Amino acid sequence: MTQPSDKALVPFVSVDNMMRLIHHVGIEQMLRDLAAYVEDDFKRWELFDKTPRVASHSDVGVIELMPTSDGEAYGFKYVNGHPKNTSEGLQTVTAFGLLADVYTGYPVLLTEMTMLTALRTAATSAMAAKYLAPKGATTMAMIGNGAQSEFQTLAMKAIIGLKSVRLYDKDSAATEKCARNLQGLGIEVVSCKTPEEAIEGAQILTTCTADKQYATILTDNMVGSGVHINAIGGDCPGKTELAAGILSRSDVFVEYPPQTRIEGEIQQMPEDFAVTELWEVIAGKKQGRTADRQITLFDSVGFAIEDFSALRYIRDRIKGTDYFIDLDMLADPDDPRDLFGMLQRAKG
Amino acid sequence: MTQPSDKALVPFVSVDNMMRLIHHVGIEQMLRDLAAYVEDDFKRWELFDKTPRVASHSDVGVIELMPTSDGEAYGFKYVNGHPKNTSEGLQTVTAFGLLADVYTGYPVLLTEMTMLTALRTAATSAMAAKYLAPKGATTMAMIGNGAQSEFQTLAMKAIIGLKSVRLYDKDSAATEKCARNLQGLGIEVVSCKTPEEAIEGAQILTTCTADKQYATILTDNMVGSGVHINAIGGDCPGKTELAAGILSRSDVFVEYPPQTRIEGEIQQMPEDFAVTELWEVIAGKKQGRTADRQITLFDSVGFAIEDFSALRYIRDRIKGTDYFIDLDMLADPDDPRDLFGMLQRAKG
Repeated sequence: MTQPSDKALVPFVSVDNMMRLIHHVGIEQMLRDLAAYVEDDFKRWELFDKTPRVASHSDVGVIELMPTSDGEAYGFKYVNGHPKNTSEGLQTVTAFGLLADVYTGYPVLLTEMTMLTALRTAATSAMAAKYLAPKGATTMAMIGNGAQSEFQTLAMKAIIGLKSVRLYDKDSAATEKCARNLQGLGIEVVSCKTPEEAIEGAQILTTCTADKQYATILTDNMVGSGVHINAIGGDCPGKTELAAGILSRSDVFVEYPPQTRIEGEIQQMPEDFAVTELWEVIAGKKQGRTADRQITLFDSVGFAIEDFSALRYIRDRIKGTDYFIDLDMLADPDDPRDLFGMLQRAKG
Repeated sequence: MTQPSDKALVPFVSVDNMMRLIHHVGIEQMLRDLAAYVEDDFKRWELFDKTPRVASHSDVGVIELMPTSDGEAYGFKYVNGHPKNTSEGLQTVTAFGLLADVYTGYPVLLTEMTMLTALRTAATSAMAAKYLAPKGATTMAMIGNGAQSEFQTLAMKAIIGLKSVRLYDKDSAATEKCARNLQGLGIEVVSCKTPEEAIEGAQILTTCTADKQYATILTDNMVGSGVHINAIGGDCPGKTELAAGILSRSDVFVEYPPQTRIEGEIQQMPEDFAVTELWEVIAGKKQGRTADRQITLFDSVGFAIEDFSALRYIRDRIKGTDYFIDLDMLADPDDPRDLFGMLQRAKG
């Protein structure tokens, strides 16, 4: 068999290699690196081709493709969302992603993105908190102690210097799991029996629960002034976590308004409800937190540009390492018109 | 390192394995099999979720995602189109595809699709010709002798019993390449110096040229009555191959009208130009060829369902073979909420 050309090979990062890469770089360093890549891309937000995600819905879940491009690279993520999967021993969300060269159309990276999405989501939250949380915030309430909770906690530690996390989940086994995982990682962990207990003394309130319903994880009277709310779990139509009253009292920051108005907490609010785009804060065009008593709210639903940043980072970071294998994914005959000849020569 | 679970592994068919599989099955048998899968899916056309392709355009090309679903499986193809690539020694079109389980959202197949698209395009053309070409058609003019030409010829041989092909390309090197590749494959090959010579005595006229322009590969006076035109190359906005006069005299059959009116030969015609959907002919709802003197025209642009059929076929066909490898692409911890614990346990 003739060897495929270099261009026919696409570097592939498996789950195993992604985990090796994360430990090689260090989780906290990688969260900082990812936050820096996301921040860079948010600064050049206007450059990007922003397509809404392309969703295929069924009774039990959704499969989505999230493409974007900065004109030089093109990236997309495949991601499913199946809330019932957990009860069947499967992940609610799995993902993989691809980066391609816009000039040739040839893919240049294929990678698992279940782990990577967990990291980029946490890195984005912490990057937003850097601009929006009260200065010197040291304590976070983490409500919902599922797959995202440890990553959120470590990102806040790595990026804004969080010292203490207060855990709450309606399922105490989830809290125990999260507390156990965070042990020995240099952060104080307090397990709480109620959401009210969890938010005591916290300057950052992170909500990340999984139920697909209009839930009220935080009621209006639970949220005092001067806090930053990092709302992760309200991320699709019919799934919210915050009482509408909180939204009215908060300054709300979002990734991409056309998407967030459908998928985020603000789906509860009128269409003209005022929001600030996070990229404008990061680019210095709008103000983030302006007063101590202000309630800031990052209504996060996840956006394709964050995945693009993560894909860029992995492409750059694996160079010269052995944390990938080359996949023979593209047919690349010597004479481009001679695909059939390539096939015939492979015979025997 | 712990072994990933079965569900975390996605079978991957490389270019090399695809070529091995094609030779194992036999090219002509595989073309017949693919045509049967496409035909089955065209018969249940109404079941499918039909999203227009999601395109990201640049100055030099386009990158597209083509998703579809029948409610049980979900498939998409990544495909680029870069006409300038050929002059740089690269493929104009490269592709890969993925099939997933709608119920879990988990991918079940990743495969190269450059080779596979060449096969499914040819299989679809021949399947259409089975319904539309004059009965007993034995001779085809093949105008445009690029990467698709040998596949088109063999599919017509395998599926409708073509005996003779008459080749023409404005680049005689392409014709020589095609003629050489078809040697010894059981079909008479006649190389021609003009398109007029190529269409002499042909009952099927296939056009498959690459220039992105409003070209006139077939002029109105070249096309007599009683032929079937298989128009492959007019497949994006601004790229056509047939004189408008031919369209007016033909009964035009298309895959998916909203897409073909933008991308196909009929982009030259008014919006209400009458067309028949090919699936309706195959499902017995509409008539195909009804008279000897009729000119039938399959205005083919390629549709996501054809890729879906090809993905289904590969999924079914590789079972029990070694024409794939398993990719560790999905993070699948024992406890779905414990993604972080999985990462921690991978340390060291």
